[in-house]
Amino acid sequence: MEVSRDHFVTFLLRLADDHLILGHRLSEWCGHAPMLEEDLAMPNIALDLIGQARALYQYAAEVEGKGRSEDDLAYLRREREYLNCLMVERPNGDFAHTMLRQFYFAAFMHPFWEKASASTDETLAGIAAKAVKEVSYHVRHCGEWVIRLGDGTEESAARMKAAVEALAPYVDELFETDAVSEAVSKAGIAPAPASLRSSFDSTVQRVFAEAFLDMPETAWPQTGGRQGRHGEAMGYLLAELQHIQRTYPGAVW
Amino acid sequence: MEVSRDHFVTFLLRLADDHLILGHRLSEWCGHAPMLEEDLAMPNIALDLIGQARALYQYAAEVEGKGRSEDDLAYLRREREYLNCLMVERPNGDFAHTMLRQFYFAAFMHPFWEKASASTDETLAGIAAKAVKEVSYHVRHCGEWVIRLGDGTEESAARMKAAVEALAPYVDELFETDAVSEAVSKAGIAPAPASLRSSFDSTVQRVFAEAFLDMPETAWPQTGGRQGRHGEAMGYLLAELQHIQRTYPGAVW
Repeated sequence: MEVSRDHFVTFLLRLADDHLILGHRLSEWCGHAPMLEEDLAMPNIALDLIGQARALYQYAAEVEGKGRSEDDLAYLRREREYLNCLMVERPNGDFAHTMLRQFYFAAFMHPFWEKASASTDETLAGIAAKAVKEVSYHVRHCGEWVIRLGDGTEESAARMKAAVEALAPYVDELFETDAVSEAVSKAGIAPAPASLRSSFDSTVQRVFAEAFLDMPETAWPQTGGRQGRHGEAMGYLLAELQHIQRTYPGAVW
Repeated sequence: MEVSRDHFVTFLLRLADDHLILGHRLSEWCGHAPMLEEDLAMPNIALDLIGQARALYQYAAEVEGKGRSEDDLAYLRREREYLNCLMVERPNGDFAHTMLRQFYFAAFMHPFWEKASASTDETLAGIAAKAVKEVSYHVRHCGEWVIRLGDGTEESAARMKAAVEALAPYVDELFETDAVSEAVSKAGIAPAPASLRSSFDSTVQRVFAEAFLDMPETAWPQTGGRQGRHGEAMGYLLAELQHIQRTYPGAVW
């Protein structure tokens, strides 16, 4: 079964935007981490994410075939054209909040890339095969921090609990299904997001049990990112992200 | 005595940039003030500042005579071309920090506009005559908050003391003298910044005495803004300030 070009490009952009926006958020920590080792680890993870975003944007540009470059896609769209989920655009908050967000995203992406490495689409399979190694390190590294803080001091445990509560409304959107995700999964290109829930849940349960944390629950899941409807934080993030490219149009290194 | 066009334009841009940047900073409080009355007062002060900036940019554009508009000057210069003092670009911090910064700036600008309303330059005299009324309200309003917080609870007094310490390195730059300020004051266009120090000090002393605060002191005055050398906060501020104009070039309301 073939997927339409529009659906495929939308699928690639959603994935690329998740990685660009989260990579940008994480890069804000550069030089501000609480210890030297972490000040290297966090930008390294951010670089992994931005590298994955680049590969996805390049491929999206190629599939789209409208002459847009990876830079056009990354830097020159407007807010409503970005299709990332809301979790990745959330402000960093404290170290616990950032680590939990990163852990959630990695716990979702790990089974995603694992399955996508057997994609019917060769290019995506190649991107996935590289990404799955990187993201398995992210799951381990961030999961260790969730445990260390959740099972740490009174202060660190309270902060990790607050992070679980603050991020709870943004978990369900990861597993959202619509015409695009259905078309892509039916064509064997990438797994249906909902099919990754049990793997995600078991990773989170394992880490949360060690961290003495309760599983996230919310009565008010937030959604809209996949259709370009973002929170207040997104405009400020894009202002910063796009500033150099918009100030010096066409600039290259 | 005549002043050179370059010196005059630089003088006007320094003044305009002070007002635009501080107005922008203050506008960040809109919707976030600690009480409703203040949520009206702060954006009102910000509007006064941005109104003064507009008048100064319009005049700078006219004197410069290179076909740039007030919007070009406000939105489309690069960071090193902004000539504001460093105090106005400092992040807001808490309410005490914002109010003290505003009080300092008003305590400086009040005698400035008072003298400039007798400027040998008629346009500037007109701008000054309007501004002096506005800024005398700013001195009173912000001075009252400095007193209320400095002579308030233990918490509010500690915050106001911390604000005095945090802003101390940025006070002296207001009074800086160089070839531009000398040329402009010798031509009778505007007062020499240094000549305003005694008036500033007596305003601050009067308010600080009631607020039980010590006068600001620093061994490390910061400088460089008047030559376009800014702190880290400035790039982020400009990214946000310029985003709409750079994203939608030439956009008008």
